[in-house]
Amino acid sequence: MPDPSGPAAPGFPTEAGSAPLGPVEYRIDRTLRLRNDNRPGVLGEVAGAIGAVGGNIGDIRTVQRGTAHVVRDLDVTCVDLVMLDRVLDAVRALAHTRLLDVRDEVLRVHVGGKLRMAPRYPVTSLADLRRVYTPGVAQVCRLIAREPSAADRYTTIANTVAVVTDGTAVLGLGNIGPVAGMPVMEGKCALMAQLVNIEAVPILLEPGPPEQLVEAIVRIAPSFGAIQLEDIAAPACFTIAPRLQERLPIPVVHDDQHGTATVVLAAVTRAAQLVGRPLAGLRVGVVGLGAAGSAIAQLLTDVLERPVLGVGRTPDSLERLQHLGGVPVDLDQLMAQADVVIAVTAQPELIAPERVRPGQLIFALSNPIPEIVPELALAAGAAIAVDGSVVNNLLGFPGLFRGALDTRARRFTHGMFLAAADAIAANARGEELVPDPLDPEIHLAVARAVAAAAVAGDVARVVPPAEYYE
Amino acid sequence: MPDPSGPAAPGFPTEAGSAPLGPVEYRIDRTLRLRNDNRPGVLGEVAGAIGAVGGNIGDIRTVQRGTAHVVRDLDVTCVDLVMLDRVLDAVRALAHTRLLDVRDEVLRVHVGGKLRMAPRYPVTSLADLRRVYTPGVAQVCRLIAREPSAADRYTTIANTVAVVTDGTAVLGLGNIGPVAGMPVMEGKCALMAQLVNIEAVPILLEPGPPEQLVEAIVRIAPSFGAIQLEDIAAPACFTIAPRLQERLPIPVVHDDQHGTATVVLAAVTRAAQLVGRPLAGLRVGVVGLGAAGSAIAQLLTDVLERPVLGVGRTPDSLERLQHLGGVPVDLDQLMAQADVVIAVTAQPELIAPERVRPGQLIFALSNPIPEIVPELALAAGAAIAVDGSVVNNLLGFPGLFRGALDTRARRFTHGMFLAAADAIAANARGEELVPDPLDPEIHLAVARAVAAAAVAGDVARVVPPAEYYE
Repeated sequence: MPDPSGPAAPGFPTEAGSAPLGPVEYRIDRTLRLRNDNRPGVLGEVAGAIGAVGGNIGDIRTVQRGTAHVVRDLDVTCVDLVMLDRVLDAVRALAHTRLLDVRDEVLRVHVGGKLRMAPRYPVTSLADLRRVYTPGVAQVCRLIAREPSAADRYTTIANTVAVVTDGTAVLGLGNIGPVAGMPVMEGKCALMAQLVNIEAVPILLEPGPPEQLVEAIVRIAPSFGAIQLEDIAAPACFTIAPRLQERLPIPVVHDDQHGTATVVLAAVTRAAQLVGRPLAGLRVGVVGLGAAGSAIAQLLTDVLERPVLGVGRTPDSLERLQHLGGVPVDLDQLMAQADVVIAVTAQPELIAPERVRPGQLIFALSNPIPEIVPELALAAGAAIAVDGSVVNNLLGFPGLFRGALDTRARRFTHGMFLAAADAIAANARGEELVPDPLDPEIHLAVARAVAAAAVAGDVARVVPPAEYYE
Repeated sequence: MPDPSGPAAPGFPTEAGSAPLGPVEYRIDRTLRLRNDNRPGVLGEVAGAIGAVGGNIGDIRTVQRGTAHVVRDLDVTCVDLVMLDRVLDAVRALAHTRLLDVRDEVLRVHVGGKLRMAPRYPVTSLADLRRVYTPGVAQVCRLIAREPSAADRYTTIANTVAVVTDGTAVLGLGNIGPVAGMPVMEGKCALMAQLVNIEAVPILLEPGPPEQLVEAIVRIAPSFGAIQLEDIAAPACFTIAPRLQERLPIPVVHDDQHGTATVVLAAVTRAAQLVGRPLAGLRVGVVGLGAAGSAIAQLLTDVLERPVLGVGRTPDSLERLQHLGGVPVDLDQLMAQADVVIAVTAQPELIAPERVRPGQLIFALSNPIPEIVPELALAAGAAIAVDGSVVNNLLGFPGLFRGALDTRARRFTHGMFLAAADAIAANARGEELVPDPLDPEIHLAVARAVAAAAVAGDVARVVPPAEYYE
């Protein structure tokens, strides 16, 4: 499965020449702790030596500054471990630099996991305990038993999202199982907590037939205000999400389908603006009609009100396309006809640069290796070319859920996805294709748009006051 | 069902005369904000007026101190709303006091729920995001896919407990449903977080047949390091917990059974010490053989190595008693023969004071109304008499789970419950029957004892280093 939720580079379209041109097999992040002599030019030597063997320098932090020496932490990304060895050798060979340590910061920040469940009210006295626990709590239980809607106010349920996976399609890694998928779930939950103050709880499902997964999720659903399905493989995901939505009175979304489609729509909308062409006039082609591709085709069909071109491998996927009124084509036909090419195939280097037509808008979204490296596509004449590191789901799901919870929406509607996409596109500034996903303002803007669409679409149980939108 | 997890008064046996003698129907907690004239004797007037109509004064906090006036928050507990009205009228009638506000602090601390899911590492930069989310996270996923035990270190799973209920037996309130039970679950989770740094997640189950509840819990079990079942009614609880334990490689406990039994054993052990009689010489009678009573009978049979007397209502409950070698009797027989009476019936005033024999140790644990009010039992000659506000599950479950998780135990053993009970009893000081449950040290002591018992009982996957026990 493609993973459209790639690294979140601020959303500038990639410029040719800014990164290695070949496909990147995988990425190694390390932090080098260096003791540099405190004299001009030493940091330049370090950077030059690392760059010369292909290492990519990220953040540099000063740890200690003395008169003779400066200790710095320097983040380096390498294509592979061979390159990392070359980087380390190059640094060791420098005269004014000593390599003190090489740390794997990725593993370090994962020790103990990435989530913490914390009490909102610390209990420090008997009086506190009587309030949050027995006997006080019985009063709140009775109130909810009498008036169930009081649970929205007096429990965390209405602000809690289950992030549910069976681990069958984790990132671009495939079916690695739910436990190995946990770091992704924790990451999503941590980001929802930080960006939009949602209590998000990872739920790992023992894999099984879709109907059994549905039964389990329905059974535990009273705990949650909404459900985000994650990294569930096609075709199971096509039945699980709609069946859950039929049976549950809370919003359910499969992020790899509608979350991805929302962010892709935002990026396509914005790309059309950047090149000065009306979205409605563009012919869209979707390469790969799995979970993400099918949802993208559907949302873009709704928006453009014209058929999309599609390249799919399975009869099922082509049937889904035709059900939307889409046109099955082969890859050559698609590249020849489409103004906008959206590829979500998990097939590295699928698109040869010579197929790219001048002026095309290319979204090669499979992670970790895109269908065509953006630099090559740009060199071949594409007007805009980006990969999954720019078109990042993180732009979508926090605001989608915030808006849905704020209105106690019964479900997500297409209108809510469209509103989210518009808000994302509208909040990109200058030459940005999409906004910075770490800016909380963008998520607030998305939430407001989603809430308004929930109210307009008549799925909101609660209508936020006017101030909510200010 | 009885609720042995009552308010956590520091564990001194109740003294006659310290509280109203009649059974307490329910408790109303309010905070009165008063503006008192700043002159001697005014607070005494307030306290006297409230006490004269039966109100119970808790904490008093000074909010503002001026030359003419002092504003104070005063916590008052009343038996019912009628008493509260009398309290308010009495305060309003005072010359030097003005009642500014009456607040329901219980509801206030429940607004928004009592739990917060927080990221352990705030993501403030692109570099952070690359570590906790994509692409860095893929490295951790791959590591776990290759070596599943790495999940213990790099995810929250091994430190996470599911607190699961179907809401069929919440406190003494009965079958009020899972959502109305949520405030209790959140309270337990918040206390586990605060006292022993466990990530505890409330899971509310749509009620259904036991086998379906078991299926759902098994399906979501990969998310958790242990499972605490809560407030599940008999007889379903007798099958759910053991079936889960058969199928899952992580510890499962029904707190209302073994959690309660552990704390009761601790209190009985300590009571025997306080009255200077050897535990082994005591005849124990259990009144009420539901979830809690059956587990108590079982644990005490194991410890005493002699049969317990039991009063049960259903053929099932008597069968369980006989299976343990226990002796079915009627209540009069039990009161006549037992040295230790443990009542968990949810039947207020079941035990008439004239049945109490001098020197008996009486644990009347049903909440909110005990089988006999401790003051009446003491007046009738009981050597020790307590209710569920003293014998509080909060003394047990945090340390039980901390010890089980620290050893990655496969399950709970009787040895672990016994070790926990011993540790609780051993940490009571002076005349305390049980320790203060808000003292983190007690939970650490329980955890160490439980961990040692897990290792000794050969259910530990991880053997803590010697420092763990220091």
